[in-house]
Amino acid sequence: MARYTIASAVRWQSLSEEERRSRLQRPAQRASEQLMRQVRDIIEQVEQQGDSALLELTQRFDNVSLDSPVLAMEQVETLAGRTEQKVKQAIDLAYDNIRRFHAQQQPQTVDIETMPGVRCQQRIAPLRKVGLYIPGGSASLPSTVLMCGVPAQLAQCNERILVSPPDKDGLLSPAICYAALKCGVTQVVLAGGAQAIAALAVGTQSINAVDKIFGPGNSYVTAAKQYVSQLAGGPAIDLPAGPSELLIIADDTADAEFIAADLLSQAEHGPDSQVILLSPSTKVVEATRAALQRQLAELPRAEITAQALASSSFIVTEDLTEAAAISQRYAPEHLSLQIKDAEDWIEQTDQAGSIFVGHYAPESGGDYATGTNHVLPTYGYARNYSSLGLADFYRRYTVQQLTPQGLSLLAPAITALAAEEKLDAHRLAVTRRLDSARMQADLQTATASTEGERQ
Amino acid sequence: MARYTIASAVRWQSLSEEERRSRLQRPAQRASEQLMRQVRDIIEQVEQQGDSALLELTQRFDNVSLDSPVLAMEQVETLAGRTEQKVKQAIDLAYDNIRRFHAQQQPQTVDIETMPGVRCQQRIAPLRKVGLYIPGGSASLPSTVLMCGVPAQLAQCNERILVSPPDKDGLLSPAICYAALKCGVTQVVLAGGAQAIAALAVGTQSINAVDKIFGPGNSYVTAAKQYVSQLAGGPAIDLPAGPSELLIIADDTADAEFIAADLLSQAEHGPDSQVILLSPSTKVVEATRAALQRQLAELPRAEITAQALASSSFIVTEDLTEAAAISQRYAPEHLSLQIKDAEDWIEQTDQAGSIFVGHYAPESGGDYATGTNHVLPTYGYARNYSSLGLADFYRRYTVQQLTPQGLSLLAPAITALAAEEKLDAHRLAVTRRLDSARMQADLQTATASTEGERQ
Repeated sequence: MARYTIASAVRWQSLSEEERRSRLQRPAQRASEQLMRQVRDIIEQVEQQGDSALLELTQRFDNVSLDSPVLAMEQVETLAGRTEQKVKQAIDLAYDNIRRFHAQQQPQTVDIETMPGVRCQQRIAPLRKVGLYIPGGSASLPSTVLMCGVPAQLAQCNERILVSPPDKDGLLSPAICYAALKCGVTQVVLAGGAQAIAALAVGTQSINAVDKIFGPGNSYVTAAKQYVSQLAGGPAIDLPAGPSELLIIADDTADAEFIAADLLSQAEHGPDSQVILLSPSTKVVEATRAALQRQLAELPRAEITAQALASSSFIVTEDLTEAAAISQRYAPEHLSLQIKDAEDWIEQTDQAGSIFVGHYAPESGGDYATGTNHVLPTYGYARNYSSLGLADFYRRYTVQQLTPQGLSLLAPAITALAAEEKLDAHRLAVTRRLDSARMQADLQTATASTEGERQ
Repeated sequence: MARYTIASAVRWQSLSEEERRSRLQRPAQRASEQLMRQVRDIIEQVEQQGDSALLELTQRFDNVSLDSPVLAMEQVETLAGRTEQKVKQAIDLAYDNIRRFHAQQQPQTVDIETMPGVRCQQRIAPLRKVGLYIPGGSASLPSTVLMCGVPAQLAQCNERILVSPPDKDGLLSPAICYAALKCGVTQVVLAGGAQAIAALAVGTQSINAVDKIFGPGNSYVTAAKQYVSQLAGGPAIDLPAGPSELLIIADDTADAEFIAADLLSQAEHGPDSQVILLSPSTKVVEATRAALQRQLAELPRAEITAQALASSSFIVTEDLTEAAAISQRYAPEHLSLQIKDAEDWIEQTDQAGSIFVGHYAPESGGDYATGTNHVLPTYGYARNYSSLGLADFYRRYTVQQLTPQGLSLLAPAITALAAEEKLDAHRLAVTRRLDSARMQADLQTATASTEGERQ
């Protein structure tokens, strides 16, 4: 008999519209009033008392007494030196791939004349100050350091502040320190939760307020990021948050053991992880369910991992076209295409954060080392938000430069539109220039010089 | 004697840090509890009752009784035909310039092998459904239609829904209709305020919910955009809102009449418009203040325009370097450089939404016709948000495609990092593939074929 509860398979065509909606429904995401109040109080405390509030909150929540919220760079270096060789090599390889892929994403300046004498530019500037939040807890997460730190380094953001809750010794793991140094992080702050986000948003005596906050976190971090991004003039944030998701489309070329292993790698993130398998093959679906039972039994954290599988969906579709349509409707964070000629299906399944093509592209590959970013839109946000990329570490601004000739060419349009929009002073800003002796003289000088050039 | 109250000039060096902060302080931006409650009620009403709620709210707020919230395309065409010739030509010219400049901003696909057998792509897809909010009120705003509509058209967003409050006849202005048709808008909706944003966010019987909402609006629109963007799975929005701003840096090559005209074109947007002049030349500052008195007297809406000038700042700086530093600190929406060799100062003043270079680049040029976008970050958001551009109408997603060789190259890094992060199933998703007879066979086939190619 099956030891773990794994959701049964259903046939999409047999479901009512309401049942379909319910199958693809994400768990409700709403921070409780109580949590929001706590978060607001924490942010206000840090705003008013700065470093001392930060230290007090770290004592309360992380049970560590620190002298300063800043981990000195010498100490970061000492800790980094203790990283196991195997882990160092893994970070080196991941770093190189992430760097290679993100370096290709360099946004370009635009510089054109839209009309003679009207030069328009779209320029790019790195964000000056960015905060990179790295969750703490039971494990160290060097991969998240790389995903946020490599693009910040490539963009050359002036200040790249890494914040992460201290371990019980008031330190960070060697692997996090090693990754942080590789990314040229400029400051390491020992703080977690809402208080860490508060410090990044409003600044303290020892930490500068930043322009944008990146990185995942628990419900306090998520609520705090949302809260500070709504403050007037507050920092930007990378993405709205939600539980992690994997949707797999498989046909009968797929290997049930591979599918099961991928579903489990998603499920182990926690009970609210979303796991969906779509296949036109009942055989593949049932083989996967059986493989899950076997593989679960071998996992150290089987009970926790099994929780996400109880609410997962195993859906039998008419064909791959129907599977693709369901995936588009759901817009998963991670989409795995374990089908024949998988590459041909990418465009039809493009509403996803990151797509894993073929039988040899496990989701955990992208989590760590292929080179793509693992900070991705979830909760259906793949429809309208982008996967994290180098562009998110820059801002774009525009420039226009007009000669007197350029302005005189634009003048009829500006004045007519300003009149239509009843903005008289907008119109006068043009006509006062046009009517001025200065502009008339400059126009004549330019005409004369053009004629001079012609002769 | 001066008829209008215009703030006096102050010398930056004579101000305390507190006075400096106060000079550059934006007006508080916080929607009242009452407004937020109203907005929430309106959104819930539209969510529950759809079109009928929309029609009822349009009756209540716009005093117009409509049969449908959708303005039929034939009617849009009829109305567009009534546009004055001069306005048509102005829209045509502005459209061409905006299109030329935005067409250059096409985001590019990235497609590389980060390692042999590890192909990573960053792909681009247009947002499917976008909503373009065009404010109504006393004047028609065809320029905003172009600023949102042209990039939506270039990106080929499938649905481009224009929403705007109806005039007293239940229609829209000819100029708005003409601009909407040029941009290939797919649907025109007669609704304004929070109810219009609600319809775009949650959809009604006749209006599809959209992925992202663009465009400026009054305090109800702003509060509603903020509210719906915070709903779990809600639409994205273009930019956080704030009152419009112009900061001018001028030296003694500047013309006080030009400066005054530009300051007035900013001030006429309303009493909360922010207007700042920085100059090392007391003479230029005082000449500008005198010119403002003269020019105000000639303006039809002088009283309203003068209100913004009462709280404006005229600051005398030590030199242009100090002026640039103040501008960076303020991070204005619009920055005008009316100085000698203005181009050389752009990089030192880059924290701005849009920069107007030289004596012949009035801000109203960029508002309408140079080609740059007039939807810009204000309220200091020029530090961390981008000026609206073509990229905002796309989403980016990533793809990875691995051969068995590629996966075996990545395997040591993935398994070491998964072990470090205590994610066993992540590790097993790789090792189960590696250990499978299938992958071993595929690896051998590939090796054999490579050797075959070599021979």
